[in-house]
Amino acid sequence: MNVSRIGIMTSGGDAPGMNAAVRASVRMADHLGLEVVGIRDGYQGLLNGQIITIEPHQLDGIERLGGTILGTSRSAEFRTPQGLEGALEQLNRQNIEALIVIGGEGSFQGAHTLHRRGFPVVGVPASIDNDVGGTAVAIGVDTAINTALDAIDRLRDTAAAFRRAFVVEVMGRHSGWIALQAAIASGAEMVLIPEVPVPIETVLHRMREMKASGKSHFVLVAAEGISPTAAEIHAHLSQGGSVGFESRLTILGHIQRGGSPTAFDRLLAARLAARAVEELKAGRSGTVIGLRAMKTVVTPLDEVITEPHQFDPETYRFAEILAG
Amino acid sequence: MNVSRIGIMTSGGDAPGMNAAVRASVRMADHLGLEVVGIRDGYQGLLNGQIITIEPHQLDGIERLGGTILGTSRSAEFRTPQGLEGALEQLNRQNIEALIVIGGEGSFQGAHTLHRRGFPVVGVPASIDNDVGGTAVAIGVDTAINTALDAIDRLRDTAAAFRRAFVVEVMGRHSGWIALQAAIASGAEMVLIPEVPVPIETVLHRMREMKASGKSHFVLVAAEGISPTAAEIHAHLSQGGSVGFESRLTILGHIQRGGSPTAFDRLLAARLAARAVEELKAGRSGTVIGLRAMKTVVTPLDEVITEPHQFDPETYRFAEILAG
Amino acid sequence: MNVSRIGIMTSGGDAPGMNAAVRASVRMADHLGLEVVGIRDGYQGLLNGQIITIEPHQLDGIERLGGTILGTSRSAEFRTPQGLEGALEQLNRQNIEALIVIGGEGSFQGAHTLHRRGFPVVGVPASIDNDVGGTAVAIGVDTAINTALDAIDRLRDTAAAFRRAFVVEVMGRHSGWIALQAAIASGAEMVLIPEVPVPIETVLHRMREMKASGKSHFVLVAAEGISPTAAEIHAHLSQGGSVGFESRLTILGHIQRGGSPTAFDRLLAARLAARAVEELKAGRSGTVIGLRAMKTVVTPLDEVITEPHQFDPETYRFAEILAG
Amino acid sequence: MNVSRIGIMTSGGDAPGMNAAVRASVRMADHLGLEVVGIRDGYQGLLNGQIITIEPHQLDGIERLGGTILGTSRSAEFRTPQGLEGALEQLNRQNIEALIVIGGEGSFQGAHTLHRRGFPVVGVPASIDNDVGGTAVAIGVDTAINTALDAIDRLRDTAAAFRRAFVVEVMGRHSGWIALQAAIASGAEMVLIPEVPVPIETVLHRMREMKASGKSHFVLVAAEGISPTAAEIHAHLSQGGSVGFESRLTILGHIQRGGSPTAFDRLLAARLAARAVEELKAGRSGTVIGLRAMKTVVTPLDEVITEPHQFDPETYRFAEILAG
Repeated sequence: MNVSRIGIMTSGGDAPGMNAAVRASVRMADHLGLEVVGIRDGYQGLLNGQIITIEPHQLDGIERLGGTILGTSRSAEFRTPQGLEGALEQLNRQNIEALIVIGGEGSFQGAHTLHRRGFPVVGVPASIDNDVGGTAVAIGVDTAINTALDAIDRLRDTAAAFRRAFVVEVMGRHSGWIALQAAIASGAEMVLIPEVPVPIETVLHRMREMKASGKSHFVLVAAEGISPTAAEIHAHLSQGGSVGFESRLTILGHIQRGGSPTAFDRLLAARLAARAVEELKAGRSGTVIGLRAMKTVVTPLDEVITEPHQFDPETYRFAEILAG
Repeated sequence: MNVSRIGIMTSGGDAPGMNAAVRASVRMADHLGLEVVGIRDGYQGLLNGQIITIEPHQLDGIERLGGTILGTSRSAEFRTPQGLEGALEQLNRQNIEALIVIGGEGSFQGAHTLHRRGFPVVGVPASIDNDVGGTAVAIGVDTAINTALDAIDRLRDTAAAFRRAFVVEVMGRHSGWIALQAAIASGAEMVLIPEVPVPIETVLHRMREMKASGKSHFVLVAAEGISPTAAEIHAHLSQGGSVGFESRLTILGHIQRGGSPTAFDRLLAARLAARAVEELKAGRSGTVIGLRAMKTVVTPLDEVITEPHQFDPETYRFAEILAG
Repeated sequence: MNVSRIGIMTSGGDAPGMNAAVRASVRMADHLGLEVVGIRDGYQGLLNGQIITIEPHQLDGIERLGGTILGTSRSAEFRTPQGLEGALEQLNRQNIEALIVIGGEGSFQGAHTLHRRGFPVVGVPASIDNDVGGTAVAIGVDTAINTALDAIDRLRDTAAAFRRAFVVEVMGRHSGWIALQAAIASGAEMVLIPEVPVPIETVLHRMREMKASGKSHFVLVAAEGISPTAAEIHAHLSQGGSVGFESRLTILGHIQRGGSPTAFDRLLAARLAARAVEELKAGRSGTVIGLRAMKTVVTPLDEVITEPHQFDPETYRFAEILAG
Repeated sequence: MNVSRIGIMTSGGDAPGMNAAVRASVRMADHLGLEVVGIRDGYQGLLNGQIITIEPHQLDGIERLGGTILGTSRSAEFRTPQGLEGALEQLNRQNIEALIVIGGEGSFQGAHTLHRRGFPVVGVPASIDNDVGGTAVAIGVDTAINTALDAIDRLRDTAAAFRRAFVVEVMGRHSGWIALQAAIASGAEMVLIPEVPVPIETVLHRMREMKASGKSHFVLVAAEGISPTAAEIHAHLSQGGSVGFESRLTILGHIQRGGSPTAFDRLLAARLAARAVEELKAGRSGTVIGLRAMKTVVTPLDEVITEPHQFDPETYRFAEILAG
C-alpha cells in the first residue's frame, strides 16, 4: 500500500526534543509529498478523535520548546480490547494510513498492538530515563542529564562553602542512567541506582571515610527508584547525624522533563523522526527507529518491547573511580 | 585612626556574589593603598586564626564563581563572651585594624558585638532570602530568584504536556521574597509564603476552580517556611487526589545558593564591597552598606539589626492578579 | 472619559520582556474590567489596521519568550502628518480609546504626537541600551547585560588558556550602558564607550602595560558606537601585532536582543505594564511609567522625550578600578 | 617497560572538557598506582621544563571549568629537529616515562614524532571543530555546538520580531561540523560550509524566494572558513539590500571555545582520558583513544594523522530539508 497520509502523536512521559521530532517528521513528510495530521494527547486523544492539521510553517521555532505541543497522556482505556478497536476505528475514520508514535516503553507496547492488527506504525524512542529498547540513546536523555548536572554543579558551589552532605534525587524509577551519567560528569562523591542496591550502612561508612580523609563536602546522587529513598536517607542523616556532615535534601523531580532541548536531543529527534517518515513512505513499518554507532537503525517492535533494560556494571565501577 | 590593614570574611549562609564582593574589596583596597587579608570560614575561622594573604591577581575570575572561596560557617562559639574576646585577640594578634563582614542577619549581629567593643567593622549584606536590613536588595537574591524561575519554567513545559499540579518548594524560612518574585515572574497559578498563612482548603479550592475553568495545569510555588509544608501539601493531594490534577513534588533546596552570579549580583556585590572599603579608609565604621534607589547607602548597624523584615502586601496581591 | 477598550503595541527595537509586559497588561485589564486588543507590528501595523483580539488564556507562557508576539517595526510613514491622521482614524475605527506603547525613545516620540492630538497614551520603556527617559532602568537591559556577560565569561575561559586579546563588541550606538555594566561584572581589562572617546594609542598602551605586568590575557569590551570600531581595533592589532597579545574578534550583535527574559526583566515588565493599565483606567495619560527607587513612577511624556541621556562618569571610573 | 610516572598536557586550540580529561586521567592514574605530573602550556611548556605536580584533591571541581588549567600553546620550536630533541631531553630529565596529549590534529602530529622516536605517547582528541581522526566525536564539540545553538536561538527571537536576515559566523576553518549541526538543530534557513562552496548569487536567490513565500526572517549560519566570508556576505546585503531583508551580522568567535562543558563532553573526556591511562599502564602506546558506537576505541597514531577529514553529504542534504 502506498501511504499518503500519516498521523503523528507523542505519548507517555514527555521528554525534551519531542517537539523537534514533530517538526522534523512534518518537514520530511512535506519533502516526500505526504500529508501529516497531529493527534493530540496520545492514545487517549486518538480515542477521542482529537485530530489536528499541521501546516509546516506553524511549527517554526517549536524545535526549541520543551514539553510537547501535541500533548501526551497515559491511557488505560486504549489498553483494553475495546480501546484498541476504538483507536483503529478513529484511524480509519480520519483516513490516517500510518502512525508515528514518539514515546517510551509503554507507548511502544501500544504501537505493537496496533502493528499486530496490521496497522502500519513506526516508533521513535523518547524517554529521559533511557529505558527503551531499539536505540543506544533515546530523545530527552541528554537534556535531562544536563539539567541534573547543572543542579549538582550548583550544589557543589555551596557544599564547598558549608561542609555539608547533599542528597539529590534525580529521575529514574527503574533505571539509574541519569543518576550514573550525572554523577560521573559532576564528580559526585557517591551514586545510588536501582540496579545496584546498597545498604544504608555502606552509605554512612563512605561518608565517614570521606570526612576522615579531610573531604569538605559530600554529594550523593540518588535515583528515584532506590530503597531507602533519598528522602529517607536524608531523614536518617538528619536524625542520627553522626557522619560529620549536615545533610540537605534536593528533589529535582519533573524539572528534568522540561527545558529547551540540547543540540544533541534536537539532532537526534530530527534524524529519528525523519527516518521514521522515510520508512513509512517506503512501505515499511512495525519497527522502532534508533541510533547506534552514530547511524539510524531500524529494529522490529517485537524485539524492542522485549529487549532487556541496558545496564553496564563497568559504568558503575567507573563512577566509583572518579568519585569525589 | 588611620586604617592600613583590613580583614574580610564571608559568614552565614552563602550567597552567589560573595566572591565578586571579595574581589571588589581587594581591588578597591589595592587602589586605596590598603592591605587586605582574608579570614577563612567566618567567625569560627577568625577564632581559629585562619588568616590568609590575598594578592589581587589570585582573584582573577572569581567574580564568576558561586559559593565563597573564603568559606563560611555558623559559629556558636563566637556568640559566647569568651568567643568575642578570642576574636578580638586574634584580630589584634594579626594586626587587623578593621573588618568587612559579608553576610546576613546573624552575621551582622556578630558584627554589632565587635562594633560595640569599639572594633571598626562594616557589613555588606548577602542573603538569598533578602531578609537583611539596610538595603533594598541583598547580594545573591537576584541569582536565587533566577535559579528558581528557571526551574519553574521547566515545570511549566511539562505541566502543559501532562495536566498536572506541581508543588515546588523554594527557599525562604521566614521570608517569601524568592517565592513571590519567582511566582510573579513565572505566572505561577498560586504562591504560598510564611507572611500570609493560607489554609490547605483554600489551596484545594483554588485548584478545583482552575480545573473547572479548563486550566490544563497548576504550578504552586511554596516557600520553605510555610505550614503545611510543600511536602505535606503534595502528600495530601496524592492521597485525596480529588482536585483533578495529579500532584508532583520538587524541592529545589540548596541549588538556589549556587551557580554563577547574575550580572545584577556581581554589580551589586562590587559596588557594596568597594564602598565598604572606602568607608573604612575614611575612618567610618559600625555600619552596613546597602543599595537604595540605585545608590549605595550607609546605615548604622544598630538600626539594621532591629529593622523589621520587609514585606509588601501589594506585591502579594499583584501575584494573585498575574496568577495563571 | 471612562476608558473601556485599550490597545497595546510593541514598537522600535525589540527587547526581552516585551511579552511579559503584554501579558501583564492584559491580565491587569482583565482584572479591572477593561477590554484589550493587540496592535501588530507597531505604528506601521496600526496604520495597516492590523488589530487582533487577545484572550488572557492565549498568553499562557509568553512571559518566558524573547522577542515580541505582537511584532514590531520602525515606521517612517507614521512620522508624517498623514501617518498621524491615519493612525488616529484607525484607532477611532477600531474603537480603541487609549493606547499602551511598549518601546524606546523613538516610540515615545510617536506616543507624544498622539498625546498632543489628545489621544490617551501611556508609554512603557523597553530598550536594551537603557537610553530612554522616565525610568532608572528599561525593560530588556538586565537580560541583555547577562547575555553579554555570559559571552565575556566564555571568552575569559579561553583567553586564560591561550594568552590572547579578545575584542568583543556589545550593543550600544549612543549608550555605553551594556558595555560598562558587563565590563564591571566580568572584570574585563578595558571598556570603550561612546560617551568617553579614547584614542587607539591609549588602548595599545594599556595592553602593553598589562602584558609587561605578566597578565596572561586581555578582554576589551567595546560598545557598538565607538570610533575606531571594535573591528577596526582588531584589524589594527592583527596587522601591527606588537602589543604581545594575539587579537580575536567577537561581534555579539542581535543575540543581545533575544533570549528568555531574566526574572528582573519579567518583574519590571509586569509592574510597569500593570501600572500603565491602572493609569489609563484612572483616566490619566500622556505619561511614561518607570521604575525609580524600586517603585513605579509616572513622568509626563514631554519631560521623558527631552530628558538627557544618563551617564555616570563615576561608573566609568569604577570600571577602571575593577579592571583585570 | 613498566610505566610508573606519566605526564599529561593539553595542546593546540583549547576545548571545553579538557579539564575534565585532566581530572579523569589523574583519578585513573591514582587508582592504578601511577604518578602523574602536569606539563604547562603544551609542547612549548615541555621545552621550557614547566612541569607541575598534581594532587588528586587539587582537581576538585575542575571538571566544570572551561579552558584548561594546564594552559596550552602552539609551539613552532617543538616542530624543529632541535625542538624534538629538547622535548625528549626534558621528558628524560623529569623522569616522565609516558605522555598523554589532549588536543587536535597538530598536537597529534607532535605526538607522532615523539612516538616515532620510541617515546610512549597516547593521544586524546579534543577539538571543537571535530576535525581530528580516530574518533567519531572529539571533546569540546558538543559544548561548542550548544553555544552556537543558544546564540542562534536568541537571533531567531529577534528575527521574528523584526523581519530581518541574520548572518551568523560560527567556528570552523576547514570543517563545517559546528555550522551544520547547529543549523539543523535550530532550523536555520540556510547554512554555508567550507566543504560545499555556494556562490553568493545562490544565497541571494534563496533569500528572495523565502521572502516571496512570506517568510518573516532568514537566519544564515556560516562557518568561518567559507568564501565569501560572513562579513562579506553581510556587507553585500547591506549595500545591495534588494533581497527584502535587512541584514545584521554576528561573529561568535572564541566564545565557542569557552563555557562549562556539557554532560556529554565531560563524560566523553572522562572515558577517553581514563582509557588513555589504562593503555599506558598496560604498556601500549602510539595510539589515539576515540569513541565509536558508544565504546572507546584505540587507533594507531599513524592512521589517525592521515585519516581524511569526515564529511557526510547526507547531513548537508538533511539540513536543507529541515531548513526554515
